[in-house]
Parts: sequence; C-alpha cells; structure tokens
Amino acid sequence: MPTAFPEDSIGLVQPQVLHFSEPLALACGRNLNEYDLIVETYGELNAARSNAVLICHALSGHHHAAGYHNAEDRKPGWWDTCIGPGKAIDTNRFFVVSLNNLGGCNGSTGPSSVNPATGRPYGADFPVVTVEDWVHSQARLADVLGIRQWAAVVGGSLGGMQALQWSISYPERLRHCVAIASAPRLSAQNIAFNEVARQAILSDPEFHGGHFQEQGVIPRRGLMLARMVGHITYLSDDAMGTKFGRGLKSEKLNYDFNSVEFQVESYLRYQGEEFSSRFDANTYLLMTKALDYFDPAAAHGDNLAATFAPAMADFYLISFTTDWRFSPERSREIVDALMAARKNVSYLEIDAPQGHDAFLIPIPRYLQAFSGYMNRIAI
Amino acid sequence: MPTAFPEDSIGLVQPQVLHFSEPLALACGRNLNEYDLIVETYGELNAARSNAVLICHALSGHHHAAGYHNAEDRKPGWWDTCIGPGKAIDTNRFFVVSLNNLGGCNGSTGPSSVNPATGRPYGADFPVVTVEDWVHSQARLADVLGIRQWAAVVGGSLGGMQALQWSISYPERLRHCVAIASAPRLSAQNIAFNEVARQAILSDPEFHGGHFQEQGVIPRRGLMLARMVGHITYLSDDAMGTKFGRGLKSEKLNYDFNSVEFQVESYLRYQGEEFSSRFDANTYLLMTKALDYFDPAAAHGDNLAATFAPAMADFYLISFTTDWRFSPERSREIVDALMAARKNVSYLEIDAPQGHDAFLIPIPRYLQAFSGYMNRIAI
Repeated sequence: MPTAFPEDSIGLVQPQVLHFSEPLALACGRNLNEYDLIVETYGELNAARSNAVLICHALSGHHHAAGYHNAEDRKPGWWDTCIGPGKAIDTNRFFVVSLNNLGGCNGSTGPSSVNPATGRPYGADFPVVTVEDWVHSQARLADVLGIRQWAAVVGGSLGGMQALQWSISYPERLRHCVAIASAPRLSAQNIAFNEVARQAILSDPEFHGGHFQEQGVIPRRGLMLARMVGHITYLSDDAMGTKFGRGLKSEKLNYDFNSVEFQVESYLRYQGEEFSSRFDANTYLLMTKALDYFDPAAAHGDNLAATFAPAMADFYLISFTTDWRFSPERSREIVDALMAARKNVSYLEIDAPQGHDAFLIPIPRYLQAFSGYMNRIAI
Repeated sequence: MPTAFPEDSIGLVQPQVLHFSEPLALACGRNLNEYDLIVETYGELNAARSNAVLICHALSGHHHAAGYHNAEDRKPGWWDTCIGPGKAIDTNRFFVVSLNNLGGCNGSTGPSSVNPATGRPYGADFPVVTVEDWVHSQARLADVLGIRQWAAVVGGSLGGMQALQWSISYPERLRHCVAIASAPRLSAQNIAFNEVARQAILSDPEFHGGHFQEQGVIPRRGLMLARMVGHITYLSDDAMGTKFGRGLKSEKLNYDFNSVEFQVESYLRYQGEEFSSRFDANTYLLMTKALDYFDPAAAHGDNLAATFAPAMADFYLISFTTDWRFSPERSREIVDALMAARKNVSYLEIDAPQGHDAFLIPIPRYLQAFSGYMNRIAI
C-alpha cells in the first residue's frame, strides 16, 4: 500500500517496455535492427510537454530510479534520494523519464536478450554500444513519448556523460544539461581500472567467450572481482577508513588466506558476491567500454570548447571533493571548456567525504543546491 | 666482463645461500624449523664492522638489489639506482647486505621450496610470515655475518616497514632507520586493494588451494590480475596520463572486448603477464598479508609515539607528492609520532610525478638528499 511508503516517495511505480523496430546504426558500424527499452516515468507530462526530465544511469544503474515496485520492496529506486515529490527533481513539477540503456541487463535489449536472428541469447554477439548510441536511442524514446525538448537531461558519472553528449548531439532538444560527478573522458588510470575488471571477467573459465548463458553458468568470480575493484574506486580512502578502519572481523588474527581478517575484506566480498548474482557479465563489459570510448573532443582535435560549440543548453555541474574516480578537476575541465565556448554554466564543488558515490547520497548541501537549480528551471 | 658495466655499477655480484637450522618462532604461532636465506653483499665490511647497511625489499623485490649476475644481464638489481660506488648507498663506504625475505620465491625458503617434513613443496602449507618475523630472521642473518649493529637499515614501501620494525624490535642494533615511501600501517583502502589481488589468485582454478606446483600448473590469470591492480596503485594518475594518455594501440577503434584499444591496456597486460611468469602466487599472497598485518602500534593502544619509545636510531623518512598508495600524509604520521617520542628524525617530501614507484626512480633531488643523509652517517 502506498501509505507504507515515505511521504516524499513517488510510491508505487511500474516499468513499461517500448519496442523499437526501426534499425539503429551504432558507432561500431553495426546495426541493431530492433530493440526494447524498459522505462519508468514519474509525475505528469504537462499540456505544453515542457516539463520532461530525462534521467541517464551510470555503470550498474537501470530504469528503476525512484519509488517502489511493490509494497514489500525494502529499497526504493537507485536515485530515490533525488527524485520524488518535493525532492531535487520534483515530481510535482517534472515528468521524469528513466530508462535502462541498450546493452543493459534489466529489461532493455542487451546481451542476455534473445537475438531475433538466431533465437538464442546475444551473449558476446551483442554489439558494443557507446554514449552517443545511447543518446540516439534516448532521442527516439523522446519521440515516442512526444517530448520534443527535455526541460533537463540529468545524470551522474557515466550518466553525466550522456547528459553532456545530449547537449552536443541534440542541442535544440534540451534546455538544461546537468552532469554530476562526471568527466569529459576517462584518464589512463580510469581505463586501467576498467581493463582489470574486464580481464577478470574475460579470464573466468565460466565466461565461455561471452556465451555462458547457453552453458547454463555465470562467470561469478570474474564479476565479483570486477565489482570489488570498481567498488574501491567509488569510495574515498577517507570514507573507507571511517567506515571500516582496520576493524577486525573476529577478535584475533587468523593468519591464513581464507579467513576474513578485516571488516573491509568482508564488505568487499559481500558487495562483489551480491553484484555477481544480479548483473550480467557481458553488460558489465559493455558499460566499461562505453566509458572508455567516451571522448567527444576526439573528433574536434581534443578541443573541448570547440566540441561544445553547438550546445544551446544551460549547464549545471556538480563534483565532490573526495571523488578520485572523477575528481573535481575533471568537472572543472568541462566548466573551463564551456566558459571558453561562452555557454551558460554553473558549477558547484561539494565538500563531501564519500568519494564518487556521493552523488547517490543525501548530502544536505548537495540536495539543497541541486533542488535550487532544478526549481529555477522554467516549465 | 666488468668493463661492460657502467662505471658507477658495483659490477658482477654473486648471491650466496645461508642455511639456518635453529627453529624460528613466527607471529602466527607456528615454527619454521630450518630455512635458507639467499643474500647478496656489496662493498667490504670494515674492521670495526660498523659500516654495514641492510636493504629490506618490498612486495615483489628480492636479494638482487644492485649489480649484475653476468655479463649478458640487460638489467641490474632492482635498486641499482641507489646502490653502488658513489651512489646514495655508497659501496665505497658501506658494506651492503640484501636478502630475499622468508616466504619469497627467489631463493630463500618459501612456498615453492621443498618442505623437509614432507619432501614436497610447501605450497599453501607455508606459514604466514609478518614484518616482525622477517626482522627476527634478518637479525639472525646479522649474527651470522658478524654484524652486531647496522649503520643503517633501509627500505622503501614494505621495506620501509621492516626498517621501522627494526628500530622497535632491536633498538641497539641499528644507528639509522631509513624508511622511504612507507606507512605506519595500511589503510582500509590499501587492504581492499590487497584483498582484490588475493581473491584474483585464490579464485583462479589453477590455484588448486595453493598446491598448484604439485599439479604442474600456475595460476597465471590470477597473478596477472593481482599484478595489474597492484601496478595501477604504484603509478600516479598523472604519471599514467603522461605515459599513455588515451593513446590508441592501433589507428582506429576495434569496438570489441578482445582487442587492445588503448596503450595503457597493453602496458598493463604486459606487466601482468610478465610478472605471472616469474613470481610465485603463494608468495604474492604472503607478501600482501605481511602488509595487511603490519601495525606496530596495535600492541600499544594505537599510540604510535609510545610504540617508538624504545627506539634509539636516528630516523630519515622520504615521501613523494603523488604517491597515493602510501601518501606523504602517511609518512608525516610517522614523523609526528617520532617527534612526540622525542626521537631524532629528518623528513623530506619530494615533488615527483611518478607515484609510489618514485622510490625506485633516479629523481635528482631524491638521490641528492638520500646521498647527503647516507654520507653523513659515521662509520
């Protein structure tokens, strides 16, 4: 029952699946002839169709960004902190659209979907998709929903990259671009961490060249390792220190390899195992590749200001002081380029100990500033 | 021929193996009844036996710290930058002793050695060894070599931890303690990275519970992943950026998972593969555990100053600005504790872009300062 949910929750929500039968040409040179996108919407589209906000998800995200799927749900959507009545993305004002991206594993067409050409799961045959591909698929979604122009496209991390790409690919179709804890492209270190994660998956004997589904197995260990290494980069050194320190799992040391000595080991193993039971290994590979490939300035001689030249949106960027995955410096690169390109840009650096994950966390100053910006968007 | 070597090289060196037959009681509660230590020495022990310097190695190090094993050697020992005639650790002045630690895989007794009790390789049965255990074994080595007191005990990273432990365990047996790019204990994040590395090895099907040697196989993939993740933490984000940036391996993107797209991926894979062919997986596990367990202040209510109370040595600490594995902050913790304990301590923070690996690199200001300190040591 909705009464069981917090007052500022959007309450019960239901995903819907939309089918697209016009082929989508991908950056890799291949086509996706038909595909599904699974979508949730929160709030009401106004008569002028001017209050729509698109939410773009990050690496392991999906369409379920806010509310609950049923009364027994223990956890709401992944960004419930920021989406709901009276929240930063206020569903009393906005019509919020959230999708699972192509290549995902939560209901949109991806590697675990059946390939209509073969009648078997795509597995490793699913094409590599890029941030640009996603933005094109999201534009088609907007067409179907009758949204000519988004009031805002909003995302954190990899989601922020999609918001930035929207401003370049479809300048007239968004009025505001909100990129949180994002970066103009990955650094060598970012790519290196992704490569470790990929090698962990690719080298798992249960991966079977990406066709594990047909073998009835899951590359669980590889996914677990990938998530463990990823997870370390989402948290700051300080946050880990505060959360776990050198706390021991049991009272004394065991001096062996199989026991868990420190609480942080136990936490990481749990995170890895939990993730490996719910996420698709091929999707993980695809998401890390989309991150690696994102580099809109590459086509403009690495000139990021020139890259943003066509953009018409107002920009709002937020970063977090202890985020070492996409540090404030990376957001400032974008801000500098936008200023050089004479765009309208606001930027906020939030003092937060939580690292990259901070964009998912209800930090008062962050929520207040984010709300302030979103509330000033004319609809 | 020695003439083929650089003038400031110690030239040809030869390791020797020393056998110890008195049981060594370990921190884990077990005994090592007998063991070998492989050792190299450079320079001459003076008549007063007052010019001996002990070199302690880091995670993947060994006894071969300087010089060449034969005329065809392409590379000298791992710290040849700092050890040799006229170098920071000047072999014209000092008698330098370098060993492979217990549990190692380069000639000292370790998991790949034959267990005299069974006639088979120890494998996973080799006991977990700690920094304290190593220091005790090094003290016995000093006894055998007739060295009552080291002029200095010197090490970087995990080697620095051994130098610090010497000052606590054997206060009268060293006059100087030199700890470079070190830390008083690992942070939760440090432990987390080690745990990922261990899980990569432990989950490799070729690991066989640590008894892979008897199966005639090597957990190559696990070791490779462990080294890849470790390697990222040895380099700074900036150093990786300068070295590789987003440089592509071939001219255009391949859009698949098996191709190497970026140079940094190729570099990491090479480092991982090369390492996996020369290093023992059980030793890697042991070394990461020794790092995790090092926490001398734990026995003193986490009071690091109280921990150093018995120390009599002079201390010299060096850190590097972009080292994020053991940041300057970690060295300053040690310096603060030593000052609080009224010890004689000098500290130098070197501005260097290379990250943790900087301690192995010939950075002029580093070498100059290090030489300056070592040259002032009375012998």
